[in-house]
Amino acid sequence: MLVIMNSNATEKDIQRVALFLESKGFEARISHGEARVVVHAIGIIEEADQRDFELLTGVCEVIRVSTSYKLAARVSQGKDTVVEVNGVKFGDKYTGLIAGPCAVESYNQLDETAQELSESNVKILRGGAFKPRTSPYAFQGLGEEGLKILRSVADNHNMAVTSEIMDISQLDMFMRYVDILQVGARNMQNFNLLKELGKIHRPVILKRGLSATYEEWLMSAEYIMAGGNNQVILCERGIRTYEKFTRNTLDLSAIPVIKKLSHLPIIIDPSHATGLRDKVEPMSRASIAAGCDGLIIEVHNNPDCAMCDGAQSLYPWQYDLLYKQIKQIAPIVGKEII
Amino acid sequence: MLVIMNSNATEKDIQRVALFLESKGFEARISHGEARVVVHAIGIIEEADQRDFELLTGVCEVIRVSTSYKLAARVSQGKDTVVEVNGVKFGDKYTGLIAGPCAVESYNQLDETAQELSESNVKILRGGAFKPRTSPYAFQGLGEEGLKILRSVADNHNMAVTSEIMDISQLDMFMRYVDILQVGARNMQNFNLLKELGKIHRPVILKRGLSATYEEWLMSAEYIMAGGNNQVILCERGIRTYEKFTRNTLDLSAIPVIKKLSHLPIIIDPSHATGLRDKVEPMSRASIAAGCDGLIIEVHNNPDCAMCDGAQSLYPWQYDLLYKQIKQIAPIVGKEII
Amino acid sequence: MLVIMNSNATEKDIQRVALFLESKGFEARISHGEARVVVHAIGIIEEADQRDFELLTGVCEVIRVSTSYKLAARVSQGKDTVVEVNGVKFGDKYTGLIAGPCAVESYNQLDETAQELSESNVKILRGGAFKPRTSPYAFQGLGEEGLKILRSVADNHNMAVTSEIMDISQLDMFMRYVDILQVGARNMQNFNLLKELGKIHRPVILKRGLSATYEEWLMSAEYIMAGGNNQVILCERGIRTYEKFTRNTLDLSAIPVIKKLSHLPIIIDPSHATGLRDKVEPMSRASIAAGCDGLIIEVHNNPDCAMCDGAQSLYPWQYDLLYKQIKQIAPIVGKEII
Amino acid sequence: MLVIMNSNATEKDIQRVALFLESKGFEARISHGEARVVVHAIGIIEEADQRDFELLTGVCEVIRVSTSYKLAARVSQGKDTVVEVNGVKFGDKYTGLIAGPCAVESYNQLDETAQELSESNVKILRGGAFKPRTSPYAFQGLGEEGLKILRSVADNHNMAVTSEIMDISQLDMFMRYVDILQVGARNMQNFNLLKELGKIHRPVILKRGLSATYEEWLMSAEYIMAGGNNQVILCERGIRTYEKFTRNTLDLSAIPVIKKLSHLPIIIDPSHATGLRDKVEPMSRASIAAGCDGLIIEVHNNPDCAMCDGAQSLYPWQYDLLYKQIKQIAPIVGKEII
Repeated sequence: MLVIMNSNATEKDIQRVALFLESKGFEARISHGEARVVVHAIGIIEEADQRDFELLTGVCEVIRVSTSYKLAARVSQGKDTVVEVNGVKFGDKYTGLIAGPCAVESYNQLDETAQELSESNVKILRGGAFKPRTSPYAFQGLGEEGLKILRSVADNHNMAVTSEIMDISQLDMFMRYVDILQVGARNMQNFNLLKELGKIHRPVILKRGLSATYEEWLMSAEYIMAGGNNQVILCERGIRTYEKFTRNTLDLSAIPVIKKLSHLPIIIDPSHATGLRDKVEPMSRASIAAGCDGLIIEVHNNPDCAMCDGAQSLYPWQYDLLYKQIKQIAPIVGKEII
Repeated sequence: MLVIMNSNATEKDIQRVALFLESKGFEARISHGEARVVVHAIGIIEEADQRDFELLTGVCEVIRVSTSYKLAARVSQGKDTVVEVNGVKFGDKYTGLIAGPCAVESYNQLDETAQELSESNVKILRGGAFKPRTSPYAFQGLGEEGLKILRSVADNHNMAVTSEIMDISQLDMFMRYVDILQVGARNMQNFNLLKELGKIHRPVILKRGLSATYEEWLMSAEYIMAGGNNQVILCERGIRTYEKFTRNTLDLSAIPVIKKLSHLPIIIDPSHATGLRDKVEPMSRASIAAGCDGLIIEVHNNPDCAMCDGAQSLYPWQYDLLYKQIKQIAPIVGKEII
Repeated sequence: MLVIMNSNATEKDIQRVALFLESKGFEARISHGEARVVVHAIGIIEEADQRDFELLTGVCEVIRVSTSYKLAARVSQGKDTVVEVNGVKFGDKYTGLIAGPCAVESYNQLDETAQELSESNVKILRGGAFKPRTSPYAFQGLGEEGLKILRSVADNHNMAVTSEIMDISQLDMFMRYVDILQVGARNMQNFNLLKELGKIHRPVILKRGLSATYEEWLMSAEYIMAGGNNQVILCERGIRTYEKFTRNTLDLSAIPVIKKLSHLPIIIDPSHATGLRDKVEPMSRASIAAGCDGLIIEVHNNPDCAMCDGAQSLYPWQYDLLYKQIKQIAPIVGKEII
Repeated sequence: MLVIMNSNATEKDIQRVALFLESKGFEARISHGEARVVVHAIGIIEEADQRDFELLTGVCEVIRVSTSYKLAARVSQGKDTVVEVNGVKFGDKYTGLIAGPCAVESYNQLDETAQELSESNVKILRGGAFKPRTSPYAFQGLGEEGLKILRSVADNHNMAVTSEIMDISQLDMFMRYVDILQVGARNMQNFNLLKELGKIHRPVILKRGLSATYEEWLMSAEYIMAGGNNQVILCERGIRTYEKFTRNTLDLSAIPVIKKLSHLPIIIDPSHATGLRDKVEPMSRASIAAGCDGLIIEVHNNPDCAMCDGAQSLYPWQYDLLYKQIKQIAPIVGKEII
């Protein structure tokens, strides 16, 4: 921790800061700059709150220098983490693809969609069974029945599946049906859930919260990893900004930033980020060109009749066209798509 | 729903929109303006997604006209909801006060704090037993032991208590100890939790999510009310903006806005909103002057040694001074503090 | 400047940073913490860009420790700056009031408004002659004719006047008519204009830009002060956030924050901040309770027929009621309104 | 305009709205929905302010249906606008490239940079002569001397030039030296400047304001076009959000959105958007893959010694590599780079 003093701080102020630091377990090292004095607090005291020092007389600003995430940090691991499911790899030079409808609606709907997607080489199927909906009066998903359909359809087409878990109480059920567990944006800081996911041995897609910073996002990954589960895939899905024309603002700079801060793979969800089908295609291509480790895209066999988020779902033929484009772009940036 | 056509939309485009609306169960009424045509979709179809219409050729914009919250809406109830706990009232002309430390640390800490607060006429004690912390390595609260201490100390001083519930699985435990359940900002859209809280007969403080709109906030209240529990107190605690000097940006305009949209009481948490003790006092006074229905303020018997959020906790003597100021301000704006 | 190294930075990385710092004119002092090494760059080199160091191998983060504003900083001046115009004082223990219509529309409109306002003890009249409008097709103000009317009406009622200047080229004209020059939010970083305002001897109200940080705002004040004009009044008028229900989000925490960072007075414009009349009153009272140094409020003799921003203008009787309330609140927080 | 009534609005409320609309020049058409009544205001009254109606009793919300930009709107012109300078085209199927240092520092610096860039086929050189700097104490640019150097170096290498104009008073000077005028983000709503730029016959790059919506941006373009100058190139350069790790948040969704709303070309400035060299390359590739009409990139012959923004400037060899990559990506999305 660094305590930066005001330019008019007195010697007494500085001494008080040093003493207070020492009372909290730090060693205080005082450095006199031309403009101001900086007190370097040596030591790692997890519980120390920088704001306690900000309130002392003569203090201008306090800066924390050690990041709180350790296992998720780039410095903790030389090589990129690669998560592999059903032959699809995410991370390092590999870009994995996941596709499927927003919600599981029926066996036929999902089977038709999966049939078309498997012709475009999709090996991991997405589909929601429990839907977090802003309104209590909206369709909330088929529940366990949805997971059963998902599993059965996927087995039919030799696919793996991913679906969103909403609550600790659903964990056993999800373990019976799902290959990759998704944590939605609204649950990124549901810490009890994250702790439980740390105890399982299955990959987790951790979506970025609607207004989460990169650091908070990595801290949530740390919750999972601290429990022993290293198979975390980060997923950017748009952040909330003042601009309301698109559903959210897709923050593609997250790709190079996360790659610098962490060894974990980062994938993009352009469907939730933009909320409209005609924006999904350009943003998917852009994600690939920026070097992402994967995409998760909503595709529906009949978007006009979808029970939720049809407007942001691609038609299967659109997905196929997009697949062909991104297959061409990936090698230009040194990535490989199966 | 209103579908607004582009100024160059053709008659065919308009007819296609009308037909599509009818296929979804609406009656379509077409109105020719000078600049453009508007199609008014008559009917209430909960599942209709406005974006499906935005994608049709010739459509400029689609506007939903019926709000999705009904029970929480001002129009559903003539009189302001008043929630009363231990003689303290929130809503209508009453302003209730809640105070206490961020976290329950020990019996002595809490008892000393409660003793001092009861001298300032505090009748509802706050204190966290389960703490949602960004870092997995930070103090996570005393758990059930904390709730026991909270209950016991409060009984000692004839106080009621409020504490934050983090998960459905904790509900039975909370019902044994706590008079008002708090839903934290990170859980505002933990819909499974909200549904369960709808089934109990105890007041709930629903904090606004870090980047939740007024409408989303009221929709979350609706989840609780739809289950039959009408004792919902909304709590503004700062939103996330580009300005990082304060922990969050306290949005005091929420007070008059919520009062127009809803009959539910709205209280302010200036401690989490600003994150620093010396900002808590002016913002508390400002909240009262803006007509809020209550305050929830962090006070600690010894903030310099607090295990969490000490920097934003008032000293008991500061709370007492503040109490005297707001007692004077309240009647100027037609409110009453006990 | 403080250069914080990664925990796995090599001795070579650290030496390279030290050498690079020295090549830029700094003295480099290396401090070994438990978690990581910090290099303290001693010296004040205005042109040094912290990002140049962020790009060096092994560097985690670079922190600037000297603020760039000096004259505006609290540490540069012990006492609060008080700006006085026509007997009205802004700053220290004084709270000044400014009122008037959004735009000058005609002699009669302004004279009637001023007549009513003078009965509520208003001594400084506001009124726009050049209006910055988002649309090129909207009313752009009466121009110099508007300034003439403003001057003449104010003289009639023994008032001072303030109006918004949009461009350097208007400066001579404004000097002929106006007592306090206003810089609008859109011009907060019109640096050429700020430099010119530094050369005059007349108070300037500097509105906060729509997404300006406190530091950028104070830096803009510094532009004016660096030219020799110390009579700067800062004006918070709402910032842009994701919440669109109100026109902007009024950031009242700016009051205690600015008072800590600077000696300059800070006033609030609740009319532009909220955009709706029924929000102006509670936010005005809240501003006073938070300890602001003044208010600038839109009042119109006939808001329903106003040529611009009528919806956010108070009726004169509303202003009078509000005036009586804030006269009661001010002394509770140690402030004085004439 | 559409006035949406509350569900409990009385017949009297509705009549009052209709009468008020008529008093403002509209025809009022009342449509009874199942949930609520909508009053459609027929007519185009530029001065009508929707908020005036929001304040009437019984009104829930008021929606403006006609956009205020007309000339910039997609519906006003069938074909994409193509701006051509020195053989480089922006718009439709063409993607143009602009490169050069942040600031003109000296003849040698610029000439060396231009020499290297011309080997990478750059035909339009950028370089700032007047620099808008947050701090009054930072380097403000070489002024007219900088423009002279820019012109002379460009002529040397058969290049066209673009530079940022800060103020109306500089217009004549810029017309002597510069082929494309740039309006910076801070000046996007400097309406007097925009009006003057409407009178010239030279292309203008209009950067998006730091927190400008798409609509405000297009309205600013409209100011220029309303004066008769149709050669407007829109430039996205990052918006301000809560995430501070990158300088700004690059909003690449602006590309498909603007292409739907307008016929004007849109280019991307990845240098200012991200603020760090290692993010510029992936974001440039992403922009091309999303279908942008051009890029403006900072390149410096010796970034480590740059007088401003060196950290975000590419080395010439990096630009060359990037150029080769984007040449491959462009045709995949149907675009052509010379």
